[in-house]
Amino acid sequence: MKTLREKQEDYARLLLAEGLNLQKGQLLAIDCPVAEAWFARLCARAAYDMGCREVVMNWSDDVLAREKYLRAADEVFDSVHSWTADFYEKVSAEGGAWLAIHASDPENLKGCDARRIQRAQIASGKALANFRKRETNNEFPWCVCSVPTEGWAKKVFPALEGPAAMERLWETILETAYVDGGDAAANWRAHVAELQRRTEVLNRLAFRTLHYQNGLGTDLTVALPESHFWAGGAEKCLSTGLDFSANIPSEEVYTLPVKTGVEGVVYASKPLSLHGNLIDHFGFELKAGKIVRAWAEKGEDVLQKAIAVDEGASYLGEVALVPYDSPISRSGLLFYNTLFDENAACHFAFGEAYPCLTGAETMAPEELRARGVNESMTHVDFMVGTADLSITGVTADGREVPVFVNGNFAL
Amino acid sequence: MKTLREKQEDYARLLLAEGLNLQKGQLLAIDCPVAEAWFARLCARAAYDMGCREVVMNWSDDVLAREKYLRAADEVFDSVHSWTADFYEKVSAEGGAWLAIHASDPENLKGCDARRIQRAQIASGKALANFRKRETNNEFPWCVCSVPTEGWAKKVFPALEGPAAMERLWETILETAYVDGGDAAANWRAHVAELQRRTEVLNRLAFRTLHYQNGLGTDLTVALPESHFWAGGAEKCLSTGLDFSANIPSEEVYTLPVKTGVEGVVYASKPLSLHGNLIDHFGFELKAGKIVRAWAEKGEDVLQKAIAVDEGASYLGEVALVPYDSPISRSGLLFYNTLFDENAACHFAFGEAYPCLTGAETMAPEELRARGVNESMTHVDFMVGTADLSITGVTADGREVPVFVNGNFAL
Repeated sequence: MKTLREKQEDYARLLLAEGLNLQKGQLLAIDCPVAEAWFARLCARAAYDMGCREVVMNWSDDVLAREKYLRAADEVFDSVHSWTADFYEKVSAEGGAWLAIHASDPENLKGCDARRIQRAQIASGKALANFRKRETNNEFPWCVCSVPTEGWAKKVFPALEGPAAMERLWETILETAYVDGGDAAANWRAHVAELQRRTEVLNRLAFRTLHYQNGLGTDLTVALPESHFWAGGAEKCLSTGLDFSANIPSEEVYTLPVKTGVEGVVYASKPLSLHGNLIDHFGFELKAGKIVRAWAEKGEDVLQKAIAVDEGASYLGEVALVPYDSPISRSGLLFYNTLFDENAACHFAFGEAYPCLTGAETMAPEELRARGVNESMTHVDFMVGTADLSITGVTADGREVPVFVNGNFAL
Repeated sequence: MKTLREKQEDYARLLLAEGLNLQKGQLLAIDCPVAEAWFARLCARAAYDMGCREVVMNWSDDVLAREKYLRAADEVFDSVHSWTADFYEKVSAEGGAWLAIHASDPENLKGCDARRIQRAQIASGKALANFRKRETNNEFPWCVCSVPTEGWAKKVFPALEGPAAMERLWETILETAYVDGGDAAANWRAHVAELQRRTEVLNRLAFRTLHYQNGLGTDLTVALPESHFWAGGAEKCLSTGLDFSANIPSEEVYTLPVKTGVEGVVYASKPLSLHGNLIDHFGFELKAGKIVRAWAEKGEDVLQKAIAVDEGASYLGEVALVPYDSPISRSGLLFYNTLFDENAACHFAFGEAYPCLTGAETMAPEELRARGVNESMTHVDFMVGTADLSITGVTADGREVPVFVNGNFAL
């Protein structure tokens, strides 16, 4: 049996080989909190083993980020440093591989001024617009993953002591990535193949609308654009044609809604950790696609600010299906981390849409807009899946097909 | 009595208040290894207490730096990333305060290709030329300091276990900065005043040459330019006129030699840790200022490369006097870190000269050159002080004055 450390090494290699499909001579950028530098080093070693040209780091720190929001001068939240913008611009422009290690205390920014967070988000959205566009279009390979931090581990496993919570969260993360001590790459490829099978079934049905209902009160109709397709498991890098997995773990298949084609009420089924703040027991009412009402028992100010960063932030940009009996869901854990929680439940995102339309890569922005693709500088997933969720699809010829029954795929 | 932690907090405040003279609304940049992030956080908190506008970080990591030198593609050593250059350019251009925490294993790059290190140094010299010029001219306040790292502490205290070595090195560093649990700022100011008194004595004497001799074999005559002055303890920021201390600790008073006015042989009295390599038992022969011969029992390839990065690298740029009974010297420790070792012994630097000339700030580059100011993209201190060092000054009227006798000031 492999040790935890050996499995962590397998995980690092998985992220590079399957997550990014890192090529010889390619530049690798790693986002990593300084507190988890050891894992970045593990990835860097694995990357050089694979012939990576150079590893460049984008370090972050929860403590300094919080101090900044609490105590820096007010004007600094309206711009992004030119050197930060340049890093994102240059690495993405040359098609560098990007490993984003999301590891943060879910409530790191609790009590910070929600307006400052919103302003920083707007500034970042503007300054990194090119980068985000390239990311959305898969112009470079990118992979979002996570490693435990002590604050986060204690939040997921509040009954455990620090080191035990860390170890337990590590084991959980490795399980969700199918790193089991065997051939991690082969496991991952088999999993990706299963997700792709699901997208093929959905793509053949080519639904016009999906109707969501559950006991929380969700009653929502979502129109899907003509020539939409469902994606999942692996993406194709536009510049190289190579497959990569943008999220590890990933249990979702997803497409986009018609921007103005969403009607009804939707209730979140899990809390949302957004910019270091926790939003809980929240929901939206939508008319002609627009969120006309938003409420939350906890963190409503952050939520209201988040859907107001620009016009597109109050429209949906993603429709994702995840069975309620997916492995992450079965763990019964609340991760307070979108990468995991989104893979435990059906979800939507408000904000920027992934252009899952056949031929999108050759369409002008106006044409994409005309087809209902939402544009925004933000993209925030929120979970809506429950054990009693039903989703009914309506095909072009008006046939009603049960897509989800009791929280799971019925297809 | 204060705890170690309380003294570390005093030290952080000292670095900001006396080292940088940080002003309300000012930007603060911190160079820090990720492994010592906790100390950067301590400094950031203290900086925000003082009304700092924002703290921006320039993180580094020994492990990743070594991996890069050993395994990255060859071409990456000939350029500096535009985002790195932009960070140095923007922060220095706006007069931001710069705290450089030097904390590294002295032999981190042992065994790495000396040519790669040299090429990286040349690339960095070119890309950061503006920054270096502004730093040399004190156009922004900067302070070099150190905190222990485990590799470094073990090297200084090889007989101690890791944590004990770290604690001992911390205590030593605090002592050298006169952080004794009392009023650290007042201690530092008194020390600076004593260094300034020394510069005044030397400036009144206005030596034309200094003649160095000791039992190691050093026999060197150094011409000092007309209207040179000795500096030490505190610098004046050109843009604000505020005093700051560019090195903490600092025991030196220093000026510049006439570029072409150095003749003879000089032996190093301590090893030199240069770019993560140790150079030991080395020396130079100089003719008309130029190093015409360099030798080292250890690390000669790194030394030869270092004096060859450009034309000015083989000429001297600094003459510094430190008594052999200075507190750092009395500790008897070898720090393998220039910031400390240079303050334990008289030293020179090869490379760029600090323009310690009255009126230098209004002189054109050609005039500075004509007066004998050396220019280089590098500046490397090396120690020459010994217990038997004698230095004799010759004044404008030919009078011989003993400056150092038996390693200590005789003035």
